[in-house]
Amino acid sequence: MAIIESIPNISEGRRADVIDALADAVASTPGVRLLDRSSDASHNRTVFTLAGPPAAVREATLTLYARAIDAIDLRQHHGEHPRLGAVDVVPFVPIEGVTMADCVTLAREVAAEVGARFSLPVYLYEEAATDPARRNLEDIRRGEFEGLAEKMARPGWAPDAGPAVPHPRAGATVIGARMPLIAYNINLASDRLDVAKRIAAAVRHSSGGLRYVKALGVMLDDRRIVQVSMNLTNHEKTPLPRVFEFVKREAARYGVGILESQIVGLVPQAALLAAAEYYLQIEGFTPTLVLENRLRDGG
Amino acid sequence: MAIIESIPNISEGRRADVIDALADAVASTPGVRLLDRSSDASHNRTVFTLAGPPAAVREATLTLYARAIDAIDLRQHHGEHPRLGAVDVVPFVPIEGVTMADCVTLAREVAAEVGARFSLPVYLYEEAATDPARRNLEDIRRGEFEGLAEKMARPGWAPDAGPAVPHPRAGATVIGARMPLIAYNINLASDRLDVAKRIAAAVRHSSGGLRYVKALGVMLDDRRIVQVSMNLTNHEKTPLPRVFEFVKREAARYGVGILESQIVGLVPQAALLAAAEYYLQIEGFTPTLVLENRLRDGG
Repeated sequence: MAIIESIPNISEGRRADVIDALADAVASTPGVRLLDRSSDASHNRTVFTLAGPPAAVREATLTLYARAIDAIDLRQHHGEHPRLGAVDVVPFVPIEGVTMADCVTLAREVAAEVGARFSLPVYLYEEAATDPARRNLEDIRRGEFEGLAEKMARPGWAPDAGPAVPHPRAGATVIGARMPLIAYNINLASDRLDVAKRIAAAVRHSSGGLRYVKALGVMLDDRRIVQVSMNLTNHEKTPLPRVFEFVKREAARYGVGILESQIVGLVPQAALLAAAEYYLQIEGFTPTLVLENRLRDGG
Repeated sequence: MAIIESIPNISEGRRADVIDALADAVASTPGVRLLDRSSDASHNRTVFTLAGPPAAVREATLTLYARAIDAIDLRQHHGEHPRLGAVDVVPFVPIEGVTMADCVTLAREVAAEVGARFSLPVYLYEEAATDPARRNLEDIRRGEFEGLAEKMARPGWAPDAGPAVPHPRAGATVIGARMPLIAYNINLASDRLDVAKRIAAAVRHSSGGLRYVKALGVMLDDRRIVQVSMNLTNHEKTPLPRVFEFVKREAARYGVGILESQIVGLVPQAALLAAAEYYLQIEGFTPTLVLENRLRDGG
């Protein structure tokens, strides 16, 4: 069965009635399941996690745009989190029976439709980007809603779809395709923050570590232990067990052991099956060895 | 979703038309999927693997009994594998959203129905057994079809359902409930059969090892390596990663490494997730962390 996940980020985290109405609109789309919703009042932002077959996810996304553009006025919006639109960012993520190319196609179709139907400028990002300068969300979002008109007028920043002027209330939006993101923390049997920070620096891509790892060393004050807090942005290319072993090895340099690890939110089945395959050295592993997957193949 | 697996063993492994007709009868039961079929001519025996919601599995099983009793005459049956009936043994296995108790209930319901509808004596085994002497299939099957009349007349061997005389053509049948069985082999980077045999003896329950492991040491002639060939009969109580680590540790005593492991046939998702949980030391792990499982919960 073909399943795509989408994680729309909406610039509204305070008005419960508005958020409820948006959630209902998504959840009531046939074929779509709303897996999670999370609002942050200080960010004034809500993140929905939904999934379903591509056509259903497309429908739910367009409904969400229509409702959010009606309900949210960025001219009145304040919050700690950077944003450039009412529907700030919408990534599509391949989960099962679909490729990244399918998600890129969906992102571009939805972008064209959103641009035309709502007169909303759209930037394509990550795997759906049309220009390397637009792969990173932060680069697109720099200047935020308030700087949009000026940014769009600059060479190289015409939107990928929709008009080259901001929508008066809704600003612009960013649509794209990416691998599922895994929020993965490793807790150390230690209260030494310096050790957690050094391990984070060793494992993260930006300072010389693994290609698809972002990491910070943090103190968990209530437990008096430290944590290597990570985002894994491509578990196929930088697998969970390799990250775990890397951190374990680095911790051992300081005589520190691994207390436990934590998965925050949801994790694709394939990421955990890869750990079983890795440690048990399973030869010729395929997901079709899993009885439940066989049951669901094709029906 | 509630899913029970059933693995009926039929005393016919040669007549393709008969086997095809039985497979079709199972596969065409609404809600049931026939996951696998495997016939052995020298054993003169076929094993079907089917799965679905309890009511659908019950229906498919009763249909299979009706067709097999019509098509198979044990008085004409010869094969290497011990057997006491046309439908020799039918285990029910909990896969998802059901407990072992649900499988025991299903086994007893089907036993009563089979006994009454087909005048076929039924013994209940494993978790569904009514008597500790009947837990092991081998004990029930001892004496086979040819010794049934004599066995049934003995004290303590009246069947659990159906008449206390063998069915003239179909003999008797054994129905029960058990955990999924995982066929799991570990290949050693060695051609020393004595090492494989010693490891098998160490790990298997019958000679002092782990409670739910059966094991043999064998030579893979074509590859010039040896293998510890195992059946894991309860992966919840004796988990896959613990078996792997046990074998790895024992092999190290002889300076032998693990080349790879192999899963033969199908494996429940939970058995592999347990390996990820074990090695990654995941705290608070539940199957609902897996995105695909969340998608399927209740719909």
